[in-house]
Amino acid sequence: MTTTALSWDSLWTNVHLACMTDGYGEIGDAAIAVKDGKIAWLGRQSELPAGYVAAKTHDGKGCWLTPGLIDCHTHLVYAGNRSNEFEARLNGVAYEEIARQGGGINATVRATRAASEDELLAATLPRLHAMLAEGVTTLEIKSGYGLDMETEARILRVARRIGREFPVRVKTTFLGAHALPPEYAGRADDYIKLVCEQMLPALVAEGLVDAVDVFCEKIGFTPAQTELVFQAAQAHGLPVKLHAEQLSDQGGAALTAKYQGLSADHLEYLSDEGIAAMAASGTVAVLLPGAFYFLRETKYPPLAAMRAAGVPIALATDCNPGTSPMTSLLLTMNMACTLFRMTPLEALQGITCHAAQALGLSEETGSLAIGKAADFALWDIARPADLAYHIAGNPSQAKVFAGKLLA
Amino acid sequence: MTTTALSWDSLWTNVHLACMTDGYGEIGDAAIAVKDGKIAWLGRQSELPAGYVAAKTHDGKGCWLTPGLIDCHTHLVYAGNRSNEFEARLNGVAYEEIARQGGGINATVRATRAASEDELLAATLPRLHAMLAEGVTTLEIKSGYGLDMETEARILRVARRIGREFPVRVKTTFLGAHALPPEYAGRADDYIKLVCEQMLPALVAEGLVDAVDVFCEKIGFTPAQTELVFQAAQAHGLPVKLHAEQLSDQGGAALTAKYQGLSADHLEYLSDEGIAAMAASGTVAVLLPGAFYFLRETKYPPLAAMRAAGVPIALATDCNPGTSPMTSLLLTMNMACTLFRMTPLEALQGITCHAAQALGLSEETGSLAIGKAADFALWDIARPADLAYHIAGNPSQAKVFAGKLLA
Ligand SMILES: [Zn+2]
Ligand SMILES: [Zn+2]
Repeated sequence: MTTTALSWDSLWTNVHLACMTDGYGEIGDAAIAVKDGKIAWLGRQSELPAGYVAAKTHDGKGCWLTPGLIDCHTHLVYAGNRSNEFEARLNGVAYEEIARQGGGINATVRATRAASEDELLAATLPRLHAMLAEGVTTLEIKSGYGLDMETEARILRVARRIGREFPVRVKTTFLGAHALPPEYAGRADDYIKLVCEQMLPALVAEGLVDAVDVFCEKIGFTPAQTELVFQAAQAHGLPVKLHAEQLSDQGGAALTAKYQGLSADHLEYLSDEGIAAMAASGTVAVLLPGAFYFLRETKYPPLAAMRAAGVPIALATDCNPGTSPMTSLLLTMNMACTLFRMTPLEALQGITCHAAQALGLSEETGSLAIGKAADFALWDIARPADLAYHIAGNPSQAKVFAGKLLA
Repeated sequence: MTTTALSWDSLWTNVHLACMTDGYGEIGDAAIAVKDGKIAWLGRQSELPAGYVAAKTHDGKGCWLTPGLIDCHTHLVYAGNRSNEFEARLNGVAYEEIARQGGGINATVRATRAASEDELLAATLPRLHAMLAEGVTTLEIKSGYGLDMETEARILRVARRIGREFPVRVKTTFLGAHALPPEYAGRADDYIKLVCEQMLPALVAEGLVDAVDVFCEKIGFTPAQTELVFQAAQAHGLPVKLHAEQLSDQGGAALTAKYQGLSADHLEYLSDEGIAAMAASGTVAVLLPGAFYFLRETKYPPLAAMRAAGVPIALATDCNPGTSPMTSLLLTMNMACTLFRMTPLEALQGITCHAAQALGLSEETGSLAIGKAADFALWDIARPADLAYHIAGNPSQAKVFAGKLLA
């Protein structure tokens, strides 16, 4: 008897699938089977193959089942918050005055440097739990609030711990070149040297880095400095990505494409040349409508041109204390539709299959297909567009990570 | 022995209070006592009066404790949803085409008319639960998706049921004059006559109406029609409120003030005359940033002029399937700050004390003071501004309605 061959660990019946393989990839009245944490079978429930026994069967009660959600751009790990600055600004205090008082990103850097690893994890947990509650099963986490060797390492260690201790797949990104630390004021090239020659090698040696990112902007680092960091990443065999064209066109997207970057992110000021370069290199455009909303931006990313060029578009929360204090991918979908006029389908692709591509995880997750991770989110909705239509609703009914139903 | 006089039903210790009596009305390291569902004492914990015994003591663990939240403008009770139209619009289908196919408000009216009372309640529950999860303890619910006698009554019966069966205080509003039902096309005056002479009296006789509202707009009812409804309300001794100045200046706010209305709502196109009239009559301005966001409006309500005139400003979700499919008062606060540049204090007043005023409930709820309802929300936050700063976070730790801790 070949019981093992004809057995499944679990089976979800009575669901509608949005496979996200070709458009929504809808399969109504479906079932999906799991074995060893992976999808073993899926299709119409009426076509369930005979002879299989599932150790556990779950009734999906007519829910829609999508791939687990993927947040491909977050600054999740930091200490402190900046609600005091938010309030001061709205009470009329000028940004310069807040900066003079040590506010802005330096406030977060100070709080993060002062926090132990356990404190940093504790500060991060409410944000993490909010994401998991919405069905997030894969999460990118950037460093960048340490800006020194020790704290950048601590942030990335917390990110790795989250991947080990919670039901979520974590990809880490080293963003040492996020901002100039105060002790390097006026010496940006020296700091970039530190990032490339000391921080990156040490962090790589400790196994903490999956990708490398830079904040390339007039108020950040120059394209030339960015390229030095990209070259260092390349020397370590690491993929790159970039905070590009958020506030001005620095040619960052084309630079990212030149290094076959995974993604260029923000992109409100993306040029036609940038779009062409991204299309040619297969670089994903990651749009961050939460930051657009919070900063009250008025310049829209060039959606029509990106669509025409076939650039895959992902969405992410950009969760961070300064410009996007949000954890909701569902609200991100709504903002992408409401503010950017993306379609609900594009929005859902943006937090599933295209987000997986932005993390180099297309083989593992982001869509429902045999052999991929059994990472699911189940929703009490009438149709997939409901996920984008509601402004910050959460119709999550169940989450499944690597085949395991989460409480 | 006078044990009853010196006893409390419950006592919350180790909390920081935002009483919302004068600004935030902060009391740090505080305690608050409950008797018979009302606030019996509050103050610094070190000044707890001697000799009292609390039947139950709760450790607030350093949380902030605010009044329970109040959503003073919702269309919570309806059937169906309109995500299909949302998706069609974003896929390029014209609004006229959607209307021709029976979409828009008529789709919601059709679905609502077809739903039984139990079905209507069931359709409403996910929205209600989302609100309760954010600490809402008082809720206004409008009719207006029936537009016939029978269905308007059914909506308001469901609203009353929610007030009886769930831990929330419900105020009902008859909004028969929400839109012209299809069967009255071209006969708006006849429909207004029906509203005033048949629907309102019957609904009042059944005890279903706490206030009366009209949608006064070029695409709604005229000021003259609005005034007929206001006069009918007045004849029944009912307070009025108005959907006013959302898309154009119809003089609706001044008309509402003339009838000593509780509130005028939306108000993007509010004139100086309207502001002066509202200030004179004590009419509350209810701003609805969710609808502003969802409709991508660009005309802002005249906040500075309202502030200068001393008009109290409330905020609400406007929860409805067409223009504000949202249930989150916390996100509403963030939108009020981010989009309208209200301060976090104004935003919190807008969903507590000013929202209570907009419902005529200032004596009962909306702030923490001895004798008011023991309706609390407890928050794991560093300071009250956190509630507005986060984009759709929910740091709720506990909810208390009429002194009862909710699970
Ligand atoms: Zn970022
Ligand atoms: Zn309304």
